[in-house]
Amino acid sequence: MGSNRLNAVALGNNPADLLLKNGRVVDVVTQTIYSGNIAIADGLIAGVGDYTEAKEIIDLQGAVVTPGFINAHLHVESSMAVPSVYCTEELAWGVTTLITDPHEIANVAGARGIRYMLEAGRSMPINYYVQLPSCVPATPFENAGTVMRAKDLVACMDWHGVLGLGEMMNLPGVLNEDVEVMQKLSVFRNEHRPIDGHAPGVTGRELAAYAAQGITTDHESVSWGEAREKLRSGIAVWARQGSASRNLEDILAGALAEGADFSRMGFCTDDKHLADIHREGTVRSMVLQAMGLGMKPLCAIAMATINPARVYGLNHLGEIAPGKQADLVVWDDLETLKPLKVFYKGRDALQSVAEKRRTVEVPGALLETVHLGDFAQQDLLLKIEDDRDYPVIEMLPGQIFTNALTIKGDKVKEFIAAGYMSYISVLERHHATGHIGKGLIWGYGLKRGAAATTVAHDSHNLIVVGQDALSMETAVRELENLGGGYALAEGDRVVESLALEVAGLMSIMDARNLTEKLEDISRTAHQMGVAEGVDPFISLSFMALPVIPKLKITDMGLFDVTKFEFVKF
Amino acid sequence: MGSNRLNAVALGNNPADLLLKNGRVVDVVTQTIYSGNIAIADGLIAGVGDYTEAKEIIDLQGAVVTPGFINAHLHVESSMAVPSVYCTEELAWGVTTLITDPHEIANVAGARGIRYMLEAGRSMPINYYVQLPSCVPATPFENAGTVMRAKDLVACMDWHGVLGLGEMMNLPGVLNEDVEVMQKLSVFRNEHRPIDGHAPGVTGRELAAYAAQGITTDHESVSWGEAREKLRSGIAVWARQGSASRNLEDILAGALAEGADFSRMGFCTDDKHLADIHREGTVRSMVLQAMGLGMKPLCAIAMATINPARVYGLNHLGEIAPGKQADLVVWDDLETLKPLKVFYKGRDALQSVAEKRRTVEVPGALLETVHLGDFAQQDLLLKIEDDRDYPVIEMLPGQIFTNALTIKGDKVKEFIAAGYMSYISVLERHHATGHIGKGLIWGYGLKRGAAATTVAHDSHNLIVVGQDALSMETAVRELENLGGGYALAEGDRVVESLALEVAGLMSIMDARNLTEKLEDISRTAHQMGVAEGVDPFISLSFMALPVIPKLKITDMGLFDVTKFEFVKF
Repeated sequence: MGSNRLNAVALGNNPADLLLKNGRVVDVVTQTIYSGNIAIADGLIAGVGDYTEAKEIIDLQGAVVTPGFINAHLHVESSMAVPSVYCTEELAWGVTTLITDPHEIANVAGARGIRYMLEAGRSMPINYYVQLPSCVPATPFENAGTVMRAKDLVACMDWHGVLGLGEMMNLPGVLNEDVEVMQKLSVFRNEHRPIDGHAPGVTGRELAAYAAQGITTDHESVSWGEAREKLRSGIAVWARQGSASRNLEDILAGALAEGADFSRMGFCTDDKHLADIHREGTVRSMVLQAMGLGMKPLCAIAMATINPARVYGLNHLGEIAPGKQADLVVWDDLETLKPLKVFYKGRDALQSVAEKRRTVEVPGALLETVHLGDFAQQDLLLKIEDDRDYPVIEMLPGQIFTNALTIKGDKVKEFIAAGYMSYISVLERHHATGHIGKGLIWGYGLKRGAAATTVAHDSHNLIVVGQDALSMETAVRELENLGGGYALAEGDRVVESLALEVAGLMSIMDARNLTEKLEDISRTAHQMGVAEGVDPFISLSFMALPVIPKLKITDMGLFDVTKFEFVKF
Repeated sequence: MGSNRLNAVALGNNPADLLLKNGRVVDVVTQTIYSGNIAIADGLIAGVGDYTEAKEIIDLQGAVVTPGFINAHLHVESSMAVPSVYCTEELAWGVTTLITDPHEIANVAGARGIRYMLEAGRSMPINYYVQLPSCVPATPFENAGTVMRAKDLVACMDWHGVLGLGEMMNLPGVLNEDVEVMQKLSVFRNEHRPIDGHAPGVTGRELAAYAAQGITTDHESVSWGEAREKLRSGIAVWARQGSASRNLEDILAGALAEGADFSRMGFCTDDKHLADIHREGTVRSMVLQAMGLGMKPLCAIAMATINPARVYGLNHLGEIAPGKQADLVVWDDLETLKPLKVFYKGRDALQSVAEKRRTVEVPGALLETVHLGDFAQQDLLLKIEDDRDYPVIEMLPGQIFTNALTIKGDKVKEFIAAGYMSYISVLERHHATGHIGKGLIWGYGLKRGAAATTVAHDSHNLIVVGQDALSMETAVRELENLGGGYALAEGDRVVESLALEVAGLMSIMDARNLTEKLEDISRTAHQMGVAEGVDPFISLSFMALPVIPKLKITDMGLFDVTKFEFVKF
């Protein structure tokens, strides 16, 4: 802002770099639409009006122009694509700003992982902002690749592109005023940085105490009642519509029925599969859905743009006005929201992406993150004695919470042989400590062989499920060789595998190859017996998440989430 | 935020300091209303819910509670009351936050004046925020008491209570990129501080260039069309309803008809007389007026609270939520908006004001700001020759712009003798330079004697109008003795006077005495002939403002505002 050139272009004394003429301009501030020519100089909007002179002129012929959309909360790693690939998919559907919490890679590789994600994202024609992961590791009941304390976050907080603190999941830590948690919160609060919340179902006095710590946003609401209480508590609400968690309709329908104001609400995906993004976009599909529920189109556009920009203090983004960054999307119309052009800092972002030579430079250390301790084949199996009782994780189709069963040893052997149950083990894979947590799982469905993954929320150790020790070892060794990923094995043969060589979480493949490969390996797993309604790898990755009930497994053993203690058996 | 105590009270483990129970709580975020008990601890809101324990409990019996109101732009000096008196009147009608630009006192006393206003305001139970005056002096065509350059503003910008830069009135300086103006803007812009605009009637390319400099707000719109263009340019709009400038209806009626969003709009008074504030309040009367125009009540309340809080980055204010400052107003109902209780930081503000011993400590230098050079009685009169033409300021009832007449010398003498015209002179009063600008005025109406004031926008020199030299000298000498104020004289007799001893702008009297005195002296002036529709002193004070057309007078002489040059005659 304030450059001589911008002033001259605004006054019409100098030609613009780019003129988008005859557009129907969406003003998200007044929520009105008007006709005008948008003059752009030095990546900024110089003015909207009767401008005529520019180096390049594009006639929009009455097409609708909005500010670039903002995906207010997500984890890029969950797409299993590296930032360049992920951002390309977002840009194609009109998202020019995303706020990502690199929580997954931080659990594997700490500050080095965050740094990589930030640099890779910021090399793209998109506003790539990071909220620093607040809970690494997520719990003390597992060994992650790293521990990030308040001082470690302080060391990252002034990096370009870092906004504030990522979702604070440690509710007990907040309510009980854990020293380390309080330090993290106060550092960011004192600098007036945004602090993302994570308060699923939290209400009443606990919500008050949580909000009073200066929590800025939350994206976990599943109903309008829950969202409304958070808004009333001073917390901005992002309506989430991911691949698994689909909360948008439940929140917005209630708000619309009550005639509520939407100015402190926005849209986010949290976790959305690359194939789903490729098919329908992220924020764009949420805007369409909101309009389908009866929201005024320009109110939905405001939720997609200026609302999250204001909440995160990004005052240079989110509206089409003089001096603001020229992030613009030209749409066919507001009914179908098909993007015709996407501009980032006044340049055609899709063209920039296409012309850019694909250089995914990943630091070597991030390509070597699978470090297993020594183990023998039989170490992968829980030893079963006939006349003892064993706790068993019961997987439920389409859910990430589980049930807990108890089954006698002789029956366990029988059920495994019959393909009703499997062995499950979690191998610590960051520091070669050799920790292995062992257990049993019901409902996964594998009839033969083994399946393994290094994507295992939130510590991302190595999970292997199988019917026999040899298959399990084969799958584990394959992941060790690949530097992480997905593997299917039968006996000593690798049936199929997918390298997720970046931190064991992400592939460097492009979107098309990656989504095809993901579909392939999933199909193969189902052919090996994995049950309908169970995603062979994604469902599996939540079996090691010891914050979601009821029975889970980490590298430290079987964990009863209800009692918050390890199971002794 | 984040204190141990607050957490304990929020969780219900500790009694609150104050509990407001059975209130109908206005949530300005969702714009919904709900029932709850508000628990307050350490001046902050701990939570709203089913709290029961507190040191003090007040049963609101269903009364409506809103956040304290915010007057988004004003000049305390224009009330002619010192900050303690002014704030008391605002508090009585539910304003707990005001944003004032001490532009007037800065023209007299620079940083020392700003400091006094800030300290005096901040000693009151109110959030007293200052926007630093950007244009001191307002023009190069007069001699003010001081010159504030960018470096002088930088020296003040980190004082507690200073927010950003006050209204930038120098539009040509912005458009032509005047070095000093650019420095002032960039210093505040680079620190992401709010910058108030002042762009009456500015439109199109000039508005784009002005907005592109990072202007945050504007309060000069007189129609919805003008306001809408500013909002679309990224500038928040304060609808103004002062004693003289009444723009609220013209702006809001248009916005309501268009179904526009109001989230970037608020209310301000700019300049409102103390008597008017005493009678009806400021923001409260604007909220009532907006509701009368058909605005939803809670939307109007949002304009009065959270909207300006967000624009100015005052995230701890403007809503009733955990961790926010406990500034609350209890109203009888939303139809009449009569305040029953006003809380600032959880304490009864009206009681605090009543109990406070009135200690108006004004620095000595601010009590001695009238410094006149030597002059003889005849120096106050323009010398008239019979057969020359003279330019004459024509005062217009109810307006601050003027017309320009040309009258021959013999007629001038005749008209003054008949009481149609008066002599007018402006004496430099800050540095005793002895500068006197001399001219003639038509339409003031004085039949005999003289009237003088040290309130003279924006440089606040001494204006004297009269029919003869002796009366004029008497009035001038009275103001010299009083240290500034208003004076009426006839011959060698002071008819009536009012000391505005603080910088020649403000009285230390309380509101009741001051408003009575102001009415008295005005009545006397009218008895001496001042025309109907002319405010004897306020109208006069604008005759020295060389930015409003057409013909004005400063200590440097008669000024043609249309040609932007002094008149030679």
